Amino acid sequence: MQIVIIGSGNVAFHLAKAFVLNDIPLAQIFGRNEKELNQISSALKIPYSTEKLKDADLYIVCVSDNSVENVSQLITKKDSLVAHTSGSLPKEILTGEYRKSIFYPLQTFSKSKELEYEKIPFFIEAENEEDKKILFEIASKISGNVMESTYEKRKYIHLTAVFACNFVNHLFSRAKEISDSQEIPFEYFLPLIDETVQKIHEIDPKSAQTGPAVRNDKRILELHEQLLKDESLEIYKTMNHSIQKMYEL
Amino acid sequence: MQIVIIGSGNVAFHLAKAFVLNDIPLAQIFGRNEKELNQISSALKIPYSTEKLKDADLYIVCVSDNSVENVSQLITKKDSLVAHTSGSLPKEILTGEYRKSIFYPLQTFSKSKELEYEKIPFFIEAENEEDKKILFEIASKISGNVMESTYEKRKYIHLTAVFACNFVNHLFSRAKEISDSQEIPFEYFLPLIDETVQKIHEIDPKSAQTGPAVRNDKRILELHEQLLKDESLEIYKTMNHSIQKMYEL
Repeated sequence: MQIVIIGSGNVAFHLAKAFVLNDIPLAQIFGRNEKELNQISSALKIPYSTEKLKDADLYIVCVSDNSVENVSQLITKKDSLVAHTSGSLPKEILTGEYRKSIFYPLQTFSKSKELEYEKIPFFIEAENEEDKKILFEIASKISGNVMESTYEKRKYIHLTAVFACNFVNHLFSRAKEISDSQEIPFEYFLPLIDETVQKIHEIDPKSAQTGPAVRNDKRILELHEQLLKDESLEIYKTMNHSIQKMYEL
Repeated sequence: MQIVIIGSGNVAFHLAKAFVLNDIPLAQIFGRNEKELNQISSALKIPYSTEKLKDADLYIVCVSDNSVENVSQLITKKDSLVAHTSGSLPKEILTGEYRKSIFYPLQTFSKSKELEYEKIPFFIEAENEEDKKILFEIASKISGNVMESTYEKRKYIHLTAVFACNFVNHLFSRAKEISDSQEIPFEYFLPLIDETVQKIHEIDPKSAQTGPAVRNDKRILELHEQLLKDESLEIYKTMNHSIQKMYEL
């Protein structure tokens, strides 16, 4: 089976690496950014091209959501299976006369950060059972956590991930902004952050809530508001309001 | 040196346990809640009382912020050092004719969750060098990370912790609410959450930001807003606005 990965960003790099590490041969990595492709190609020993897309049985499109539709039109081989890796696009965004599918890894990818691929949940959608089987077999070589999905379900999976990952990371950015402003090293907070996350492996987050809002400690809430401004103050008010609503305070 | 811990909640329990594990003798654990005190006393083999506060050299007040002032008035021994453990109260909230100080552990505590005490940063404040030395020595038996602080600095440490811990945990609660609504097991998101946190041990959170807001993907932002309501929608809008401000989008 000839497999081609399209893209040269974080997802393309990590999927290509996971394929190579699990002895799933890649016929080509294809994209526009020659510098990035060249680096991936050298690191993983996969042929690359920016011009001639190879004939393949399976194309995995790993480009930003805005580009999936355009890029999918480059695939002209009719007897092929095409998957995209986006959390929020239907498989029908793929535009061409081939079989359409989804190969969605639920993880946050940065090229500079190594990952344990075997723990990544993969969500699969396809037009028929045979294609599902193909994608399940490939994903199962990488991860112990492969599931079927639907577009409806995947939208909510992605939305949950935005709260649990993207927004959490932004809170770390705003937290660091506060500690930096007082020359307090952000490293001091890493044991606390690690513990916050370890806790929810064991306890429902709703039961694990601590802090001034859930204690309804008005004195501290007011003190904190005086220390904040602009977006951080908005976040402070919105989060406290949401906490107090959840616990009916 | 006779040391007494006052309180029977999460902080009192974990500090008492850290003292016992590090061979720092405790003369008594004192509080109002006999059931909780009895459990801590049995588990850690420390005498407890709900009525007669023992004469001691050091009292560590581990009660909720609202109770620190009242509880501190129970301490009548003049030649003693009294510390409280709150992130947001000045040491002057302690009301009595004794030496006042701070013994602030930067961590989130739940009785049911074990902790690595040696990693907890402790922040110390006292009226004089001798008292500082006493508290440094005790904290250093528990943790490798003991520092002097000031009230001004401690306020910002606590505020940073609210963003990096309390608000992060609340995002997990709201995320779980979304996944629960679609019968998607929240366990699927744990590898993603773990990775989100591991990343900031290596990369500045501002550089690690991913997701639709930082990509300015208006289609997804609108789609997500349609899936949300009430407090979760408010959080969604506030966080995206803050992300887009930070990256000047």
